[in-house]
Amino acid sequence: MKIVIDAFGGDNAPKEIIEGVLLGAQKHADVDFVLCGDKQKIESILNSRDGGKFTIVDAPEIITNDDMPTEAIRNKENSSLVKAFDILKNDEDAIAMVSAGSTGAILTGAIMKIGRIKGISRPALAPILPTKLPNKDVLLIDSGANVDCKPINLQHFALMGSAYYSILYGKEDPKVGLLSNGTEEHKGNELTKEAYPLLKQAPVNFIGNVEAREYMSGSVDVMVAEGFAGNVLLKASEGAVLAVLSLLKRSIKSHLSSKIGALFMSKTFKELKGRIDVLGKHGGSPFLGCKKLVMKNHGSSNRNNIASSIDQAILLHQNKLIEKIGKALEVASGSNA
Amino acid sequence: MKIVIDAFGGDNAPKEIIEGVLLGAQKHADVDFVLCGDKQKIESILNSRDGGKFTIVDAPEIITNDDMPTEAIRNKENSSLVKAFDILKNDEDAIAMVSAGSTGAILTGAIMKIGRIKGISRPALAPILPTKLPNKDVLLIDSGANVDCKPINLQHFALMGSAYYSILYGKEDPKVGLLSNGTEEHKGNELTKEAYPLLKQAPVNFIGNVEAREYMSGSVDVMVAEGFAGNVLLKASEGAVLAVLSLLKRSIKSHLSSKIGALFMSKTFKELKGRIDVLGKHGGSPFLGCKKLVMKNHGSSNRNNIASSIDQAILLHQNKLIEKIGKALEVASGSNA
Repeated sequence: MKIVIDAFGGDNAPKEIIEGVLLGAQKHADVDFVLCGDKQKIESILNSRDGGKFTIVDAPEIITNDDMPTEAIRNKENSSLVKAFDILKNDEDAIAMVSAGSTGAILTGAIMKIGRIKGISRPALAPILPTKLPNKDVLLIDSGANVDCKPINLQHFALMGSAYYSILYGKEDPKVGLLSNGTEEHKGNELTKEAYPLLKQAPVNFIGNVEAREYMSGSVDVMVAEGFAGNVLLKASEGAVLAVLSLLKRSIKSHLSSKIGALFMSKTFKELKGRIDVLGKHGGSPFLGCKKLVMKNHGSSNRNNIASSIDQAILLHQNKLIEKIGKALEVASGSNA
Repeated sequence: MKIVIDAFGGDNAPKEIIEGVLLGAQKHADVDFVLCGDKQKIESILNSRDGGKFTIVDAPEIITNDDMPTEAIRNKENSSLVKAFDILKNDEDAIAMVSAGSTGAILTGAIMKIGRIKGISRPALAPILPTKLPNKDVLLIDSGANVDCKPINLQHFALMGSAYYSILYGKEDPKVGLLSNGTEEHKGNELTKEAYPLLKQAPVNFIGNVEAREYMSGSVDVMVAEGFAGNVLLKASEGAVLAVLSLLKRSIKSHLSSKIGALFMSKTFKELKGRIDVLGKHGGSPFLGCKKLVMKNHGSSNRNNIASSIDQAILLHQNKLIEKIGKALEVASGSNA
């Protein structure tokens, strides 16, 4: 079993990416890691700490956020990302690719190089957010990769999100909700009203329309949304969390009593920070709907995020995520027809 | 100058509504208040405290959230809300109507009874939210009254929101942003891409696409959104704020040191609560795009919210909100043609 790494994608590449792979390798002795990127630089960071076990594929070019995704994937053949995709595509033993590089380039490369599961027209990104409950996260699909969706895309998001959540949290039949502007079945826009019956007949535990207010309440496991609305949901939640923390900080600074109080509350602030930062726990998100596992990590990923992403890729592979999506799709297509 | 009050709309009606009007009357001696609702009950609450100055219009029926809006407006002629609309429509001196009743019925009644400003096909609700900055709020238009909008509707939202914000905060040329999934001009969905040039040529200070993350950052004054996305933005922000407060509370309870710290931080928690609750400051939102001022208050409004809503109605009337919207619309129609 091999995992391919884009060692030169992300703000902290290549150092943190490679350190993350070293952490992953300690935990998963049976996995072979293939590192793509400037060979000399990779070797100097590794400094033989991998015991010569890693395969290094020289790919001196780098794709940045300034590159146009389609052109970059087509023309930068010697970039770390394109090389990584080529290996994932051609090597049967390669089960996953991990990159913290340009989102656009990763998504474009995944579709152009790896291809979609038959029947899925729009693969999706499914990030995870914390809820107000201590041990409960919520999955959002799609978070912005797909705008102007068709109703059938939302059904596919439901299937893919449900299969993914179920493996990640070991929960059978996670609760799937459809993002809408009201809970009643007749609420929504044209798209969600048409998608509603498709989600109802899909092989998932569909609980109906869910309002954005419920996203962080813990009452739903998988929130299905068209990409534009999903993007608003994700970013509004992030922005609001940051705004509250900023207001809190500013107020503490302006009162001596609050400053003293804050000293006593260090445990709480630490807990709050840890709870909000789910990214650290999961590392990356798979680009759901592709024929092989493409793990997209946040650009700011550190070694722990990369190691978590490797853990997740192995978990998803062992639990046959892609096969499960394929099967759910067959069942759904049967009832759609 | 008269203000018409639906004395029987809202969770705390009629008591808190009437107390709110009494507060408003103390401040605005030149305004005549017309209270619609069960006359006997209104009189018993007033208990002559208005010095016989209020006009009471007997309207014993009540419209609830369970009523279908269109039917209720058509058939419940003797309801406090319909009577209030009739007076607002027919009495030239009536400048505004204030209600904390069913949102659907208020919006339907506003369109059926009062009518739209010429050229505006979709009036909109524009609630105000706090930002992370101390003295800066942000206006969202539309927050859910209109889904499946056309590009021209978003241009109208920009004009109306800008005129409203400018009066409410005394700020000329407030910054108007278009909610999108990225800041670049080419980002967005079909709707926002078509709306972009229309906002650019409108007589407002258009600053371009704005991501949901920026909503509470204070970098924009008026956020223009199609109603579905706007609803997601509003409710996701509310949900996230509540989730952070809930996590904070739970964590404080579970550590003795945090409990002690929290005692010292009472000023900060009070400030945070006050900052988040903008509702109390403004009372209600006008339903923008109608021929006369229809102030929609939250169902849970108390006397202070009603009094604030009366203040706001007078401010908007004195500063000629409706005329300003009409003029901006003429300018925009000129450049659209």
